[in-house]
Amino acid sequence: MKIGVILSGCGFLDGAEIHESVLTLLAIDRLGHEYLCMAPDADQRQVVDHRTRQAARGERRNILAESARIARCEIRDLKGVKASEVDALILPGGFGAATNLTSFATEGAGCSILPEVERLLTEVHGAGKPIGAICIAPAVLARAFHGRKSVSLTIGNDAGTAAALQKLGATHRDCPVRECHVDRQNRVVTTPAYMLARRISEAAEGIEKLVREVAALARQPAAPASAGAPAR
Amino acid sequence: MKIGVILSGCGFLDGAEIHESVLTLLAIDRLGHEYLCMAPDADQRQVVDHRTRQAARGERRNILAESARIARCEIRDLKGVKASEVDALILPGGFGAATNLTSFATEGAGCSILPEVERLLTEVHGAGKPIGAICIAPAVLARAFHGRKSVSLTIGNDAGTAAALQKLGATHRDCPVRECHVDRQNRVVTTPAYMLARRISEAAEGIEKLVREVAALARQPAAPASAGAPAR
Repeated sequence: MKIGVILSGCGFLDGAEIHESVLTLLAIDRLGHEYLCMAPDADQRQVVDHRTRQAARGERRNILAESARIARCEIRDLKGVKASEVDALILPGGFGAATNLTSFATEGAGCSILPEVERLLTEVHGAGKPIGAICIAPAVLARAFHGRKSVSLTIGNDAGTAAALQKLGATHRDCPVRECHVDRQNRVVTTPAYMLARRISEAAEGIEKLVREVAALARQPAAPASAGAPAR
Repeated sequence: MKIGVILSGCGFLDGAEIHESVLTLLAIDRLGHEYLCMAPDADQRQVVDHRTRQAARGERRNILAESARIARCEIRDLKGVKASEVDALILPGGFGAATNLTSFATEGAGCSILPEVERLLTEVHGAGKPIGAICIAPAVLARAFHGRKSVSLTIGNDAGTAAALQKLGATHRDCPVRECHVDRQNRVVTTPAYMLARRISEAAEGIEKLVREVAALARQPAAPASAGAPAR
């Protein structure tokens, strides 16, 4: 089975959360599956000095080039990836999901989303394949499905973020850090990870469960009634 | 127990290997210990575009600021860390170990080492505390101990690299990727990780064993004869 992993840079303050990304790759590999890393070929919305936690003004970094640091193997420009190439998709968190893939960090429920990210998410979902999202990345799913369907997801228990997701049409469910939330009808799995985790082992446990659920859903074909157009 | 982790940037081609670093933090946390991340506050010797694998000429990055992306918690300037603050030290691999902490990548057995790295390694070793080194990072140990004592270590089975380490006075032992090599006398533990690993789960298994061995050695005080000046 090949599971696509959408990265959004390299570093929790301006890209993909590194621990969550690596833990995702490890969990996929330990289940005996392959991963296909991908990222948009575009400049990051910002670069943050992770020591001072201040914006590094004037510095430019490319999302795909930075994501390649995490992948350390072939990484694909997301624009060229077709839904037929993967059995499932997983989005690790980090501010990159809320600043590079979408503008959720600054615009909340009024955010934009990169067109190629929206395209791949809706194609994969439309093909009845499961999608996992970690930490703040459920916001990317909520934005992609906005106006199309209501998915049930978790970003932990932050009331403000949950309210923004509900405005986007999603249903939010509180979930503890070591667990994941499964929307079986929409084949969407989410876990809070560093929205709640105080230790890397807490994030790891939730992510392992998420990857296991995503892989299990990918093994079960979508219900017959929804083949090619999954259940609403 | 508090285990120091020496990072050397963020990315396998010009900094700390990200998978190895995260797997080290995870293994420490899962054993119930704390980690203290640290890195030198200095510019990287080079910046490499990880998509093209070519040098990004004219770009400058700071080792400590980049390492903070992996740490995602407090990270210390290595210069200010005392041996008394940690029970053990672990160095993940990546080209940063061979270009930022030392110049082993370009100068082999004739390489230099950052003085503050040499200082901390010899102080920790002199206090009878164990040191773990992953992938190419054993080269940093060999250089730090050059002319002082001969440690036994592994970088997998690469004959050229092993020969350079032997020129530095170390003894090389071949070791499979899922194992680690323990020099009990010198309290040094090494594992090949991405010197050999073709999958992240292979690197993870060796690193978990290394962290377990390092923690076990840290629990056993150095032999009485060598207190303060470990056995030769």
